[in-house]
Amino acid sequence: MNIEDEIKKLDWSKEPKGLYEPIGYTLEAGGKRIRPTLCLIGARIFGGAEKDVLPAALALEVFHNFTLLHDDVMDKAEVRRGRPCVHKKWDENTAILSGDQMMIEAYKLLSQVAENQLPTVLRLFNKMATEICEGQQYDVDFGISEYTGISLHEYMMMIRLKTSVLLATALQIGAYMAGATEQEQQALYEYGIHIGLAFQIQDDYLDCYGDEKTFGKAIGGDIREGKKTWLWLTAMQSTTDMSPLMSKDYTTIIAEYNRLGVPQKALQEIERLTRQALTYLEQVPQNEATDQLRQLAEKLVTRKS
Amino acid sequence: MNIEDEIKKLDWSKEPKGLYEPIGYTLEAGGKRIRPTLCLIGARIFGGAEKDVLPAALALEVFHNFTLLHDDVMDKAEVRRGRPCVHKKWDENTAILSGDQMMIEAYKLLSQVAENQLPTVLRLFNKMATEICEGQQYDVDFGISEYTGISLHEYMMMIRLKTSVLLATALQIGAYMAGATEQEQQALYEYGIHIGLAFQIQDDYLDCYGDEKTFGKAIGGDIREGKKTWLWLTAMQSTTDMSPLMSKDYTTIIAEYNRLGVPQKALQEIERLTRQALTYLEQVPQNEATDQLRQLAEKLVTRKS
Repeated sequence: MNIEDEIKKLDWSKEPKGLYEPIGYTLEAGGKRIRPTLCLIGARIFGGAEKDVLPAALALEVFHNFTLLHDDVMDKAEVRRGRPCVHKKWDENTAILSGDQMMIEAYKLLSQVAENQLPTVLRLFNKMATEICEGQQYDVDFGISEYTGISLHEYMMMIRLKTSVLLATALQIGAYMAGATEQEQQALYEYGIHIGLAFQIQDDYLDCYGDEKTFGKAIGGDIREGKKTWLWLTAMQSTTDMSPLMSKDYTTIIAEYNRLGVPQKALQEIERLTRQALTYLEQVPQNEATDQLRQLAEKLVTRKS
Repeated sequence: MNIEDEIKKLDWSKEPKGLYEPIGYTLEAGGKRIRPTLCLIGARIFGGAEKDVLPAALALEVFHNFTLLHDDVMDKAEVRRGRPCVHKKWDENTAILSGDQMMIEAYKLLSQVAENQLPTVLRLFNKMATEICEGQQYDVDFGISEYTGISLHEYMMMIRLKTSVLLATALQIGAYMAGATEQEQQALYEYGIHIGLAFQIQDDYLDCYGDEKTFGKAIGGDIREGKKTWLWLTAMQSTTDMSPLMSKDYTTIIAEYNRLGVPQKALQEIERLTRQALTYLEQVPQNEATDQLRQLAEKLVTRKS
């Protein structure tokens, strides 16, 4: 099953256009479709049919894109996936209302799952949706608080909520719908959590040490914005002289990171989390779908963009 | 069952405070709680237990308050129920994100209904949620379009979506959960639709002809904002000389309304819609709960605020 084709089949040519066009615009912009793909893989590992989990897989993708739409409004972002954000192409009110409708559309897709599985799927989905909003709020809170307010532990908690739980829940829902045991569902969930954490640290790493050509955006953005990333928080806890880290100059910060061995620590942590993710896969049936998750983990550690 | 007490029992003292406090603030502000009350009455008419429909009733109230929260951001409103709007007391991003979480909380409450009833309740709820967003979008579209773009018929369609379907669905969900037939559910739904339309026209009427003391806000607000209300659209279709109606001066508009018999037409239409609403009640069991709906309709026509 090609998930991109399934997303294209969703009809957004409805009235009123002001409500639905921005939803179509957002969903047609592409992206890796990693969340619905994980949901399908989660089902395939346990011999589930992709068509049975498709509504849930699509709900996850629509919900994810809804969060991007509203996050872009809150961040006052200009561009998403090479095109103007909805609140730029239309206006802020359109982005708020179309985003609201997009969340409802996610729940409409979800309501198409088999009736006997709906209560559990809805419960898992609601838990995930709540955690994403909590993660977003912690991100906001951390952004405005002083350093003393945030530890590396809290940062990991935040990215777990903001990024990992959606990947983890996508796998769990697919697994649950295909008849996996609680323990098997939990194993895939933990794989998703660890992959998500590794993914975010890799993102923080590439923002400082990536190649502009392959990374697709300017290097050092996090530093110039003074963002509290995994690298910055790790540097902070590795030194007693915090003054160089208060700079927003790329060269100054990178020199300090290098002096403190931060890039090596980041790569080690990504490697550690990825290895840990892979151990969880030992608890589920071994087949081509499980192999796909292994390859995904592998690709993550070596990715340049 | 006192619905106000049940709303108070919901716990918003959770972390992160920035996400949950605005939800508690919004819900504690009161209001008539008409939607959850209708849901409970809908169940009582068919002998249903209030405690069984309570989660759905609360979901409707939380969802309604979510729409108010986001509408206030979009309208740049200052005050709601005598207190600063969330985006004023906190900020716009807080209002967006807490609103999003509030919608999720509505779905979490909904997920507590009996498992065998969940698929239908979720379907009815999603349909209603979609229609409210569509109604809000039409309201925006109508606000920016020229007169020629809107007929009274379109205005009624818009308020049906924006206001009536939530009242109608509240009754329908209560009735469905208590075992009403499709036809009985539909009768209560139509009662809700007609009451909602009458309510909105009464609102438009009071904004021009109400008593400031009992209405609770300044008279003539709609006129000063140049809003296309039922009264204005009716005046437009009753005259060939549209120029006086292009004014935003209270005295000019009211004189024109009076000349064209608009207030009498409004009162007649409210009366007609209310009578029609009451006829639908003949199709459902007659008991004290049905009487409550009759009293509600009566109160509506004679209300001053």
